[in-house]
Amino acid sequence: MTQVPHPILVNGQWRPGSHATAFSPINPSTGAPLSESFPVSDWSDCDAILTAAASAFSELRNRTPDEIALFLETYASLIEADKEALVEIAHQETGLPKAPRLGDVELPRTVGQLRQAAAAARQQSWSMPTIDTKANIRSCFQAIGPVGVFGPNNFPFAFNSIAGGDFAAAIAAGNPVIAKANSSHPATTYRFALLADKAAKQTNMPSGLVQLIYRTSHPDGERLVADPRLSAIGYTGARNAGLQLKAAADRVGKPFYAELSSVNPVVFLPGAFSERLDKLIDEYVSSGLMGTGQFCTNPGMLLMVDSEDTSKFISAVTSKYQSSPCGTLLSRSVETSLLKSVAILKDAGAELLTGGTKVDEGRCSVANTVLRIHGKQFLSDPHVFQTEAFGNAVLIVVCKNLDELVSVIEHLEGNLTGSIYSDSTGADDADYNRVAGVLTHRVGRILNDKMPTGVAVSPAMNHGGPFPATGHPGFTAVGIPASLVRFAKLTCFDAVRESRLPVVLQNANALKAWRLVDGNWSNGSL
Amino acid sequence: MTQVPHPILVNGQWRPGSHATAFSPINPSTGAPLSESFPVSDWSDCDAILTAAASAFSELRNRTPDEIALFLETYASLIEADKEALVEIAHQETGLPKAPRLGDVELPRTVGQLRQAAAAARQQSWSMPTIDTKANIRSCFQAIGPVGVFGPNNFPFAFNSIAGGDFAAAIAAGNPVIAKANSSHPATTYRFALLADKAAKQTNMPSGLVQLIYRTSHPDGERLVADPRLSAIGYTGARNAGLQLKAAADRVGKPFYAELSSVNPVVFLPGAFSERLDKLIDEYVSSGLMGTGQFCTNPGMLLMVDSEDTSKFISAVTSKYQSSPCGTLLSRSVETSLLKSVAILKDAGAELLTGGTKVDEGRCSVANTVLRIHGKQFLSDPHVFQTEAFGNAVLIVVCKNLDELVSVIEHLEGNLTGSIYSDSTGADDADYNRVAGVLTHRVGRILNDKMPTGVAVSPAMNHGGPFPATGHPGFTAVGIPASLVRFAKLTCFDAVRESRLPVVLQNANALKAWRLVDGNWSNGSL
Repeated sequence: MTQVPHPILVNGQWRPGSHATAFSPINPSTGAPLSESFPVSDWSDCDAILTAAASAFSELRNRTPDEIALFLETYASLIEADKEALVEIAHQETGLPKAPRLGDVELPRTVGQLRQAAAAARQQSWSMPTIDTKANIRSCFQAIGPVGVFGPNNFPFAFNSIAGGDFAAAIAAGNPVIAKANSSHPATTYRFALLADKAAKQTNMPSGLVQLIYRTSHPDGERLVADPRLSAIGYTGARNAGLQLKAAADRVGKPFYAELSSVNPVVFLPGAFSERLDKLIDEYVSSGLMGTGQFCTNPGMLLMVDSEDTSKFISAVTSKYQSSPCGTLLSRSVETSLLKSVAILKDAGAELLTGGTKVDEGRCSVANTVLRIHGKQFLSDPHVFQTEAFGNAVLIVVCKNLDELVSVIEHLEGNLTGSIYSDSTGADDADYNRVAGVLTHRVGRILNDKMPTGVAVSPAMNHGGPFPATGHPGFTAVGIPASLVRFAKLTCFDAVRESRLPVVLQNANALKAWRLVDGNWSNGSL
Repeated sequence: MTQVPHPILVNGQWRPGSHATAFSPINPSTGAPLSESFPVSDWSDCDAILTAAASAFSELRNRTPDEIALFLETYASLIEADKEALVEIAHQETGLPKAPRLGDVELPRTVGQLRQAAAAARQQSWSMPTIDTKANIRSCFQAIGPVGVFGPNNFPFAFNSIAGGDFAAAIAAGNPVIAKANSSHPATTYRFALLADKAAKQTNMPSGLVQLIYRTSHPDGERLVADPRLSAIGYTGARNAGLQLKAAADRVGKPFYAELSSVNPVVFLPGAFSERLDKLIDEYVSSGLMGTGQFCTNPGMLLMVDSEDTSKFISAVTSKYQSSPCGTLLSRSVETSLLKSVAILKDAGAELLTGGTKVDEGRCSVANTVLRIHGKQFLSDPHVFQTEAFGNAVLIVVCKNLDELVSVIEHLEGNLTGSIYSDSTGADDADYNRVAGVLTHRVGRILNDKMPTGVAVSPAMNHGGPFPATGHPGFTAVGIPASLVRFAKLTCFDAVRESRLPVVLQNANALKAWRLVDGNWSNGSL
């Protein structure tokens, strides 16, 4: 590789990484390597960014919520102004369409998140200030310390490690961020980091507020995660790599927010099929193939009771999967991993109705894939049939009756979402109650008559769920202000003199934050 | 051992444990074994309680918040009615005084917690209901599933595994509890379990709502914790045993709320000493020796800057430690472990000013102990000098100046509490800011001019802190309603039909719960 690798961002300086090797991503639409290269940092880079992050965290104590908000807003505006270049680079690295998607959906979402996070930082209600006036005890969430963000491959903007949801939440909560670029879109991440650095300088932020490396060895990654200078981690990505890092964090009692895998079961109750079969076929196919199935909340497992409608549904879905254009996958490794998952499911006994093979020689792609099993098969090996096939593939589980369907759900691992389609007149109500009773407990978000793709950035959203969907079922990665709390520690101030309290806990309530005072919420002063 | 071991409580039935061995606690006031014996359960007992707990959890879905509250209140009243026997048994097993302590302080606190938990269960504001009316997305915390509670040795009532804070929080959040008795007070725990079972039957609770075993092998303990039928664990106790169990839970992504160790640093700034030296000597000694130092929040490490006042403080404390009566320790293992910790600190170079030896042959006890080191010594080996000496021992760290003191704090692990004493007129303010800036980040609760013993059951309390004080710095084990959230999962209801929503998320808000609706808190209906 003759190209000079891109610099890393350490303590406000762009400098060459200390590295023995470098890597280049490919353009998944052609399979050709892109010309730029990126360093695989050694430990000395990690050490330097950890020291700078710790020092930035100390300095951040002297910045007001307003100043942090201003950084986020400045950054959002710089991103908007650089939209054309960002969209072009991300399109090359990910194969995702410029429109509809990168330019008109994901970029606006990304800057929207940054601005929502800024508003949350400014008002501080996210910190759940709680006051017991009689005992003179007050508590709130406070910044936890430097946060490491490992972003996923599938949202180069909205979950980018230096621009996305975890980044926005960590900064808004008052923490420096160490971003580890996703290896499939390092140039996009580099471009964001240029803007983030510029915004930090324009708004007089500490020099180690935002830092960037592209990749490390696995041992250095674990060492980074376990280092006492790092206080928490947000990780979205592959299950095995995530579990290794999580174990390193767990050993030292450090919060590691991981989003690892989810098949997002969708249940179609019989009444829904009789009432609106054609509509449901379209609704499912559109969601299942959206973004070539590469969403965390892609509906990857469909559950239904055997019937004539069910057979019609399956053949219609199969035929639409055959005739629909086959999208580009994000990278060669997504392609490899999808083919491998399909092979595992087939080997376990799933019937391949369509797809399952590579489409083009160069482009990263797999034919739209439908697999079918019976409920009995699932119950004979629930573990293997929950293999996530990330991409444009679906496993349909046909159960002989509702009892068997409920039993299948009882064997599900944790998932981000669970959807239930039922008849609108109430014919399915008894079935619904049985299914929802067991499904709700296994998912972070339960939906009615709605596909799980499309995760609104709402305070009421939960993008989380029981393991292995995430590492702790009490937190959401999407939705402001709730996502900020992940990157905070609870601090109680016991008889602390008023002038020494954080502004949000002082009697005057200058920020007009919502506070739980003696058991009642209010946003006034004391 | 000829005595028939006490029965275990499985699925509403008292039955002999399946066990190969049994154990008997001792009376720490005399060192003599108590006559009763308790089974060390084998895996078949664990398996049976797990199955019953899972089934109870399903049944609990059909109980209203009011019914769960009624159970907690009925139980609280049964405890009050049985007070005399409970106090007698606990006194024999723990050596803790009947008054002041078991009968007049800890028992009222215990029933108070159960009643506060009942009120929280009834009103459901703890579940943080959040509603986005525009997007029709609603979320709240919901019961997580069966909870395992491992109670500590030092609060036979208020943190008893089947009556204390974790128990109350887990039940109020809607979960069955599997209690693992602390081995030093199994008879107390058995007595509570009799009452809990009676209350469950009187209030028509599922038969596996409350269950009890006394002890397992270590491998069975880890297997229990990792079993998918158990959803979360509350553990308060020894660090090494806790870390083993935590690792088992972490591997399967299960919340494990651990309270492991804390030295609770107390900083005396120079102005406080010049202003009120005598008062501070008394205040410290009274807190340090309270309950023979056997509180999680015992002030075990004192930090001060070298001066004449400091020398006076140390000699006065040493002399008061010598002349104060030496309390009884909770068990032989507390005695052994305290002597061992003192030896570790001495071997590392700490100077023993008084104490450090066993007092009586039979009774569990160690002479009141004061150790001193210099800041420089601490900084040469911060790890060893943070060895927790649980009991009536203190380590005084004398620093040459404030810089050194701040540096010592920068090397502290996570703690439950950190106290700072300062002059009342503001003379210490600059020093306070430096110290508080670094100390606050390392503790769950920061106190001004106040000893950390005495943990108010307040909504604003945080009894938690960064590792190793606990396993996650975002949660508190004391304080209702916040402690309930540990035993809950976040669930989002996306476009779920209104009649299918939990009552607390329905428009009518029949429970008048506080809810975050479109960004504002209110307790009205929609």
